[in-house]
Amino acid sequence: MIVVLKNGVKEEKRAQLIEWLKDQGLGIHISQGEYQTVLGLIGDTTHVDMDLIASLEIVDSVKRVTEPFKCCNRKFHPEDTVVDVGGVKVGGGNFCMIAGPCSVESEEQIVSIARSVKAAGANMLRGGAFKPRTSPYDFQGMQADGIELLKIARQETGLPIVTEIMGVNHLPLFEDVDLIQVGARNMQNFDLLKELGKLHRPILLKRGLANTLKELLMSAEYIMAGGNEQVILCERGIRTFDDYTRNTLDLAAVPMLRELTHLPIIVDPSHATGIARLVPPMALSGTACGADGLIIEVHNDPMHALCDGAQSLRPEEYAALADKVRRIREVIAK
Amino acid sequence: MIVVLKNGVKEEKRAQLIEWLKDQGLGIHISQGEYQTVLGLIGDTTHVDMDLIASLEIVDSVKRVTEPFKCCNRKFHPEDTVVDVGGVKVGGGNFCMIAGPCSVESEEQIVSIARSVKAAGANMLRGGAFKPRTSPYDFQGMQADGIELLKIARQETGLPIVTEIMGVNHLPLFEDVDLIQVGARNMQNFDLLKELGKLHRPILLKRGLANTLKELLMSAEYIMAGGNEQVILCERGIRTFDDYTRNTLDLAAVPMLRELTHLPIIVDPSHATGIARLVPPMALSGTACGADGLIIEVHNDPMHALCDGAQSLRPEEYAALADKVRRIREVIAK
Amino acid sequence: MIVVLKNGVKEEKRAQLIEWLKDQGLGIHISQGEYQTVLGLIGDTTHVDMDLIASLEIVDSVKRVTEPFKCCNRKFHPEDTVVDVGGVKVGGGNFCMIAGPCSVESEEQIVSIARSVKAAGANMLRGGAFKPRTSPYDFQGMQADGIELLKIARQETGLPIVTEIMGVNHLPLFEDVDLIQVGARNMQNFDLLKELGKLHRPILLKRGLANTLKELLMSAEYIMAGGNEQVILCERGIRTFDDYTRNTLDLAAVPMLRELTHLPIIVDPSHATGIARLVPPMALSGTACGADGLIIEVHNDPMHALCDGAQSLRPEEYAALADKVRRIREVIAK
Amino acid sequence: MIVVLKNGVKEEKRAQLIEWLKDQGLGIHISQGEYQTVLGLIGDTTHVDMDLIASLEIVDSVKRVTEPFKCCNRKFHPEDTVVDVGGVKVGGGNFCMIAGPCSVESEEQIVSIARSVKAAGANMLRGGAFKPRTSPYDFQGMQADGIELLKIARQETGLPIVTEIMGVNHLPLFEDVDLIQVGARNMQNFDLLKELGKLHRPILLKRGLANTLKELLMSAEYIMAGGNEQVILCERGIRTFDDYTRNTLDLAAVPMLRELTHLPIIVDPSHATGIARLVPPMALSGTACGADGLIIEVHNDPMHALCDGAQSLRPEEYAALADKVRRIREVIAK
Repeated sequence: MIVVLKNGVKEEKRAQLIEWLKDQGLGIHISQGEYQTVLGLIGDTTHVDMDLIASLEIVDSVKRVTEPFKCCNRKFHPEDTVVDVGGVKVGGGNFCMIAGPCSVESEEQIVSIARSVKAAGANMLRGGAFKPRTSPYDFQGMQADGIELLKIARQETGLPIVTEIMGVNHLPLFEDVDLIQVGARNMQNFDLLKELGKLHRPILLKRGLANTLKELLMSAEYIMAGGNEQVILCERGIRTFDDYTRNTLDLAAVPMLRELTHLPIIVDPSHATGIARLVPPMALSGTACGADGLIIEVHNDPMHALCDGAQSLRPEEYAALADKVRRIREVIAK
Repeated sequence: MIVVLKNGVKEEKRAQLIEWLKDQGLGIHISQGEYQTVLGLIGDTTHVDMDLIASLEIVDSVKRVTEPFKCCNRKFHPEDTVVDVGGVKVGGGNFCMIAGPCSVESEEQIVSIARSVKAAGANMLRGGAFKPRTSPYDFQGMQADGIELLKIARQETGLPIVTEIMGVNHLPLFEDVDLIQVGARNMQNFDLLKELGKLHRPILLKRGLANTLKELLMSAEYIMAGGNEQVILCERGIRTFDDYTRNTLDLAAVPMLRELTHLPIIVDPSHATGIARLVPPMALSGTACGADGLIIEVHNDPMHALCDGAQSLRPEEYAALADKVRRIREVIAK
Repeated sequence: MIVVLKNGVKEEKRAQLIEWLKDQGLGIHISQGEYQTVLGLIGDTTHVDMDLIASLEIVDSVKRVTEPFKCCNRKFHPEDTVVDVGGVKVGGGNFCMIAGPCSVESEEQIVSIARSVKAAGANMLRGGAFKPRTSPYDFQGMQADGIELLKIARQETGLPIVTEIMGVNHLPLFEDVDLIQVGARNMQNFDLLKELGKLHRPILLKRGLANTLKELLMSAEYIMAGGNEQVILCERGIRTFDDYTRNTLDLAAVPMLRELTHLPIIVDPSHATGIARLVPPMALSGTACGADGLIIEVHNDPMHALCDGAQSLRPEEYAALADKVRRIREVIAK
Repeated sequence: MIVVLKNGVKEEKRAQLIEWLKDQGLGIHISQGEYQTVLGLIGDTTHVDMDLIASLEIVDSVKRVTEPFKCCNRKFHPEDTVVDVGGVKVGGGNFCMIAGPCSVESEEQIVSIARSVKAAGANMLRGGAFKPRTSPYDFQGMQADGIELLKIARQETGLPIVTEIMGVNHLPLFEDVDLIQVGARNMQNFDLLKELGKLHRPILLKRGLANTLKELLMSAEYIMAGGNEQVILCERGIRTFDDYTRNTLDLAAVPMLRELTHLPIIVDPSHATGIARLVPPMALSGTACGADGLIIEVHNDPMHALCDGAQSLRPEEYAALADKVRRIREVIAK
């Protein structure tokens, strides 16, 4: 950690600060510049309150020079992590195609869509059982029954299943789910993250609408620090002033996260845009910048979907897209 | 709900859409403009999927003309709600001054601060027991013990206590807490909101960093739809591109929410700015635009606080501020 | 335009508003819903002050149903516009590869880079002569001399030249520039836009850091309303809370603008990210979602560039990228 | 400037970087931490390309420790600047009340409003002559005639006049304007700023919708570096995801700018909110956090204003507000 002192600080105040820092077990390296004095803090600064130091009258600014994330940091783990989801590998060159409806609605619906997306090239099935809805008056999902129907669809197709968890109370229901999704609104539900850290199961962690990449990595760190290292990150759009699409898909996050972490990174163009006809171009863009997979909403009958029909592709549209995705992967692989 | 059709839509497609809407039990009022046709949907549109209609090829745009929030809507409940928190009234002209440390650290600390802030003019005591921290390696709060210490401080001073809940699992520990706080990161933790809706206890609901006023009201609606109408809203800063303060305090939200809802609205200048010396001016601003109260971090010894010392006022600073707050309230009351 | 009245509006006030609207030459269609009354305004609403109506006490909200942009609107001009820049076509299936240094620094530098980028596949040369810099103490560009050097580079290579204009005073210097760039900070410099509307020359209009797609189109409209229809739009990143990259490249703007307008749309991954190693993945993403071209900074010696060396590719990196761009274009063309 | 190197950098690469920095005339102070090496750059780093260094493979991050603004920096000029606008002092404890219509519309209108606002407590008259409008089809202002009418209003009332300049071409028309306003959209129109730096006349510089405080100060620096030190800053709202008000008024900018600069800082609640009934509460908030003045739109007949009627107060509303502003100033002065 580096502490920049203000111009013309009194020797006495400076000495007090240095004493206080040393009391916390840190070594101090003093560097005298033309205009300012810079203190380099040596030792374990994990527990040092950076904001408090920054707020002192004699301090101009503070900068942390070691990232606070360890487990997910590529510096300490240079090789790509490969997560195994019910036999499907993700990361390290393995691309996943997750597809399915926003909500599970019936056995017929989910089995039929599962078959369609498998035929179209998907290798994992998504489907919402517990639905986080802005309004208490909206459809809240089939809940426990929805998870049972997903298992039936898995049995019928062999596709591993992905579904979202909304609270620690529901954990017992997720024992046989292949990939447990943490939604954007729960990215900083730290109680939930801690519980997921105790499992030995793959977790799909979506970036929150207003969260930085560092915060996303710190949330992954919550899970990994608990002992569960099977985390897949997902970029799904951030909230900006832009009002033509639901959110703004931040694709530069993909190559940037690639540098910062060894975890796999996938892209969700459906929730990012909220508009079905923008999903194919953004899915191709996500592939072109090097994502490890795509999670896309597909529905047999969007006009009668109980949720998010506006952003769902039809199976035939998904198949056409999957074909182009494969060919873009060939282009960038070379 | 209003549906604007695109220019030159084929009669057949238009008829199909109208049929489909009627199937959902809606009356349709057709208004033919020079350039566009507008459909007015008459009846209960609560369950109509607005995004789906907007995504149809023949539709230009859709607008909801009735707000989706009912319980907290001032249109249906014109008088201000007054929430009673352990004998302290909030709203309808009653101003609350909540103060205390970021975290409860010891009995001595919390009792001593409680006495200081009471003497300085506070009428409620805040203190974190469960702390939502970005990093798993940071201090996570004294948890159950912290709540017990808050109760001791209440016994010593008579101040009602306010503390944050992070998950439904901890609900039993909050049985004797006067005002249960839902933090910004949990504003859309819908499972938690539903459980709080079953209580008959005051809830302090903080606005999320990237949430609109409508979303804040919909989250209040989750609690109220469950039967608990004692909700206090809190503006605490939103996330923007601005990088000099931690968040951007959106004070125009106060008079805007005043129009939209009958619930009390308070302001948290400590978390919004993250810088102690900006807290007094922003607290005065929050008072001047008509807030129903202020929640402010106060610590006897900010340099040794375990959390957020950078944004804490000393008791004497708080007392000076409280005095100005009172006088600004007199100015705007006239 | 649609005006939604509040619940329980007095008949008298409603009549006054309708009278006032009719005075402005509009027909009014009244639609009575269960909860609200909706007025449909028929006729030319271009000059109606939407914000004023929205502010009236009896009005709940107002919605414009016809877009305020005409010349650039695809509804009135369904075919793609193709802009001819010194013989190079842009739009309607024609892809442009604009490359070159941030700043023109010397004849040797610009001619040498022009040759490199041409060999690597570029078909237009960019180079800054007038530089908009945040600080008055930074290098402000070679100005008039820079434009002369660009012309020499054009003579040597045959590449049309692109450079930025910062004010109407400099217009005479741009008489022989093939594509005049309006930078992000000048997107709403309306005086400049009006002057450019009087020319018969291609204009490259960059999206401002905080501008919506509608505002970008309205700025194009300023140029086109003056009679100059040769406008190319450019997405170059918007300002968000995100702090890892300089700006957030909003690629969904490409397919969205494609629907709204017939003008060509290109992408600038260099300024969007500010980091050279993120330029190739984001250039490929921009291609994959259907852009009509890319504008990329290339420098022979980034370590000694006078400006923006951090985001410049070396010619060999650009050549490798150009090859992949071509192959992605083949994939999406099918 | 401080350069943090990555872990495990090769000695040879490190030596190359240090050599390259020394070639630029800088002294280098090397500080060896446990995990990282930190280079302190000593000497004039004004011209060092921070982004370029940050982009090098061996560099983790770079931090500038001296601010790039000099003329407007409070560190080098601790006393408040007082700007004299036609006899009215602004800053250093002098509060200005600027009021008037969005647009000058006629002699009768502007003279009558000038009299009203003077009677209500204003000490400066605002009125738009050149109007920056998003749409080319909207009213663009009375231009030169508007300025003449403002002068007549000044003659009738003695109030100094404030009006916006949109381009360097119009400078001759502004010779007798007391306070020349640079609008938010032109905050980084550097050509204009440079020309204004050559004048000896007060400038009102509004913050851009997406500009940081540092960028605002750098734009002031453009004017001051040219020799014109009479600059007044204005906070008028920033663009965020928030959609209930036109922009988000960032009032914490007022006390923050107070620390960073000696220039006066005023607040514009009219443009920030766009809604007349939110103007009084936000004007009081702006006063309470210590602004040096307020600029507010006032119109005799908002329903017939040619521009921005939605955000205009009536003179009697302004008078009531002005009274409360005075009393809040008394509270915070003590």
